[in-house]
Formats: sequence, structure tokens, C-alpha cells
Amino acid sequence: MAAQPIGVFDSGIGGLTVVAALRALLPNESIFYLGDTARVPYGGKSAATVQRYSLEIAEMLLRENAKTVVIACNTASALALPRLEETLPVTVTGVILPGARAAIAQTRSGHIGVIGTRATIASGAYERALRSLDPQVRVTARACPLLVPLIEEGWLESSITDEIILQYLAPLLDDGVDTLVLGCTHYPLLRNAIARLAGDKIALVDSAQNCALAVRDLLGRESLRASESDRGALRVALTDPPDAFLRVAREALQLDVGEVEVRTL
Amino acid sequence: MAAQPIGVFDSGIGGLTVVAALRALLPNESIFYLGDTARVPYGGKSAATVQRYSLEIAEMLLRENAKTVVIACNTASALALPRLEETLPVTVTGVILPGARAAIAQTRSGHIGVIGTRATIASGAYERALRSLDPQVRVTARACPLLVPLIEEGWLESSITDEIILQYLAPLLDDGVDTLVLGCTHYPLLRNAIARLAGDKIALVDSAQNCALAVRDLLGRESLRASESDRGALRVALTDPPDAFLRVAREALQLDVGEVEVRTL
Repeated sequence: MAAQPIGVFDSGIGGLTVVAALRALLPNESIFYLGDTARVPYGGKSAATVQRYSLEIAEMLLRENAKTVVIACNTASALALPRLEETLPVTVTGVILPGARAAIAQTRSGHIGVIGTRATIASGAYERALRSLDPQVRVTARACPLLVPLIEEGWLESSITDEIILQYLAPLLDDGVDTLVLGCTHYPLLRNAIARLAGDKIALVDSAQNCALAVRDLLGRESLRASESDRGALRVALTDPPDAFLRVAREALQLDVGEVEVRTL
Repeated sequence: MAAQPIGVFDSGIGGLTVVAALRALLPNESIFYLGDTARVPYGGKSAATVQRYSLEIAEMLLRENAKTVVIACNTASALALPRLEETLPVTVTGVILPGARAAIAQTRSGHIGVIGTRATIASGAYERALRSLDPQVRVTARACPLLVPLIEEGWLESSITDEIILQYLAPLLDDGVDTLVLGCTHYPLLRNAIARLAGDKIALVDSAQNCALAVRDLLGRESLRASESDRGALRVALTDPPDAFLRVAREALQLDVGEVEVRTL
């Protein structure tokens, strides 16, 4: 019998940043990834809609025999994690608490910036997670709805992209944050530009990397780790056929996604 | 019995530009508008998915007793119009043929530019419509995927928006088009900026206005016009609760949309 995969989902392709981090950290684990490209993006949608979509996808991952579910999407983590935890018979890991933990570990001044989609920022999920870890922390959050479309256009290094990043970051930098959470799984693809513009006094926290660490710990605690002799396989399914952005992500992440399946939910 | 409405749909809010044009031209007509905000945008999605969504929405409009269906979305017009025409028992009007007709009437040089979403441009629908009207016409088309997110961010007058528009338009202007089709129902909200940057030698063709004219002609031909004593009502339904962009559109279009209903398809 094939090893049970880790089930990972995102509204689209951005969650492959989490997959890349999981592959590097847990090479023996198999992964089934579902990107909901037929309904992407989630970042401007309501909690009710994002919860409904997340439940549909999680049920599909369970039918694929997933041993645990990873929400590789900040918006779905912000809006649907408690709902999935209540409903699913397996553990669920989002990207927000791991990112918040890493930010608390990084900050010296106790003032943390968070950038994300409209829905993620409006939910206040990062503030809640950060304050649950340290009630004294100061948080400045900002929605950056143009960054995802810029990344999907492939304008990763462009003067226009720099200007937009600066416009979004200026209030956070002026406000004196010393740590910045990249609160959207797309944003690691802009990490170089953001780091250059934020300057070397600002520590960047990448939710993808920290989510992968949390999954490793979880699998250890629950004795769900794959055998060291297993060669982890990656299956990628999308709800709409892949477009040019899959190539952008694949190249930027150097991820071998193999043949992409198309699934209707 | 209430007058039968014109059923209008779009992937989101952008199609309200067509509603505003219909309201101005046909004040006696009632309109039922459905914006599929739970799955917006369509512009990067496949033909199969956009056809499936369009059929689901058209069936809903028929249950609302629509006497004719208007696809107030260039992407859905480009990818799903023939499919809806085959399937529905009422007439269907898209935005592409009316826009193409107006462009052919405008051009002096016979060289027409078209801008739109990735899916609209990739479909080649404007080229086909323009060439069906004039086989000699020259067409230069360009996908502008960042314009919709910029409009939804409300950055209608901004130096960053100007730079992005210029980056997209430069190849068309260099290529010598004398007429530019705004091939996305969002784009009329950027009309001022596009007109300023394209210069006054370029005629802009707004698909919303021309679609409304085509609907008026159709209703006349089919004897479906509302009585002159009718006071047309507008009902707006969305598949996800309204967000900030509805306010942007409402103000830019000075459209009274009343109470917005939320419908799950």
C-alpha cells in the first residue's frame, strides 16, 4: 500500500512555496497538492465563501488518503482553519501560527509588520496569533492586493514592482517595524525585491519555511513520519488547467511538479 | 405580472459599466445583474471553466425570467458566447461583436489595437470578430492582466497606474494603431488615464456603450421592449458579499444599485 501523503492546498499556485519547503525538509514524505485555480484568488473573498471552498478541498484530500492537511494559503488559514479543525478527522496546519512564532522569535523591538491579502489582513488573524504568543507585541498590518497579480504577471524584478512594494511598505517602515511577516504564500517569490527595499535592518519572515517546520514537528509528535526508506512523491492537481504562472513558480522554486492533473471539485 | 428583466452577468463588478450604459439608454427596462464575485476573475481561467460558470449563471438568470441575456464580460463573451447561444432559449448578446463593429466604424488607418485579459486576448475572439467585419483590418492585441487589480485597488489616477498602462500600450502605440478597443468591462473606469496616455490621435472604443446599443437594437427587432410607462428597476446580486470595489464602481459610475443580494450558485 502506498504511503499516505501530506495533503496540501492553496487557492492557486502560490502554495507551491510551501511544497518546496516541505520537499527540502521532508524528502521521504509524499505530498498531494491541490491548487484551486478555477476559483483563485481567495484574497478578496468572504469568510463564508473561503470556508466553503476549503471544506470541499479538504474532503477531496481525505479521499486521497491524506494523513494530515496543510493549508498552504494565508487567506484560507486566516478564515477557515478553526472550521477545518472542528470538522476534519486529521490534524490541520495553517501558515499563520508558524509565521507568528518565527516573527516573535526574530523581533528585538517587539514591533512586527504583516503584509497579506485584503481578506487575511481584515481577519486580524496574525494580530491574534502574535498576541497569543506575546501580549506586549505591537503589530502594524497592511493589505497589499497588487502583489499577487504582479507575481503572477512574472514582474519579479521591475521598477514598477519596486514602486508598488515601496508604496505598500512605506507606512510600515515609517512606523518602525523591525520584522516583516510575508503573510501570503506568493510573496516569497518577491523576497529579493522586498528585502532590498526594506533594507537590512528588517528581518523577513517567510511563512512557507516556518509552516514546513511545523509540519515536521507535528508528524514527529503524532508518529506519522514516512519511513526513511520511502522516496516521497509529489502529485499536483489543479481545478483549472495550468497557465503561464505555473512555469514562473516552477522555475523560481526549482520544483519538479511532474504531470499536473486537472480535477473538478 | 412584473416586466421581464434583461439578465446581465459578469465575473464580478466590472459589468456594472454595461448596466450603467443600459440604464442611460433604456430607462424603461428592468435589469437583473449577477456578478460572480465568489469566483472572480475569469480572465486567467480556461475556456472549459468559463463556459461551465457562464452556463450556471445563465440558467439562474432564466429562472429570474430574463427575456434576453447580456454577457457583460469580455472574457465570458470571448469563451462562452457560442455555447450559450446554442443552449439558451433566449437571445444572447456579448460585448465583443458590438465593440468590434464600433472599432471598424472608427478606424481610418485600418489598424486596430485591442487590450483585455489574458483569456480574452488568447482566445483571438476580437481578431475573428474584426476580420469577419473587414477582412483587410490589421489587429494588434495585448493582454493587460494588471489593469483589473489596479482598478479594484481604486488606483484610478496614480503615477504607478500610468506607468503600467504605458508599459502595456507602448507596443501598440509604436505599432501605429489609430483605434484602441477597451476589451474588458473594467477598463472604462481607467478611460481618463488611458485617453491621456494614448494621446488624442487614438480613438477609444468602449465595449460597454456599444453593447448597450446592440441590446437596444435587439429588443426593438424582437419586439421585447418594455412599455414606455414602465419604470425600469435594477436588481444586483453577487455570489460573494460586496467588498470595497463595489463602492469604487458605484461612485465612478454614479449608479444606484440599491440593496445587493447574495446568491450561491
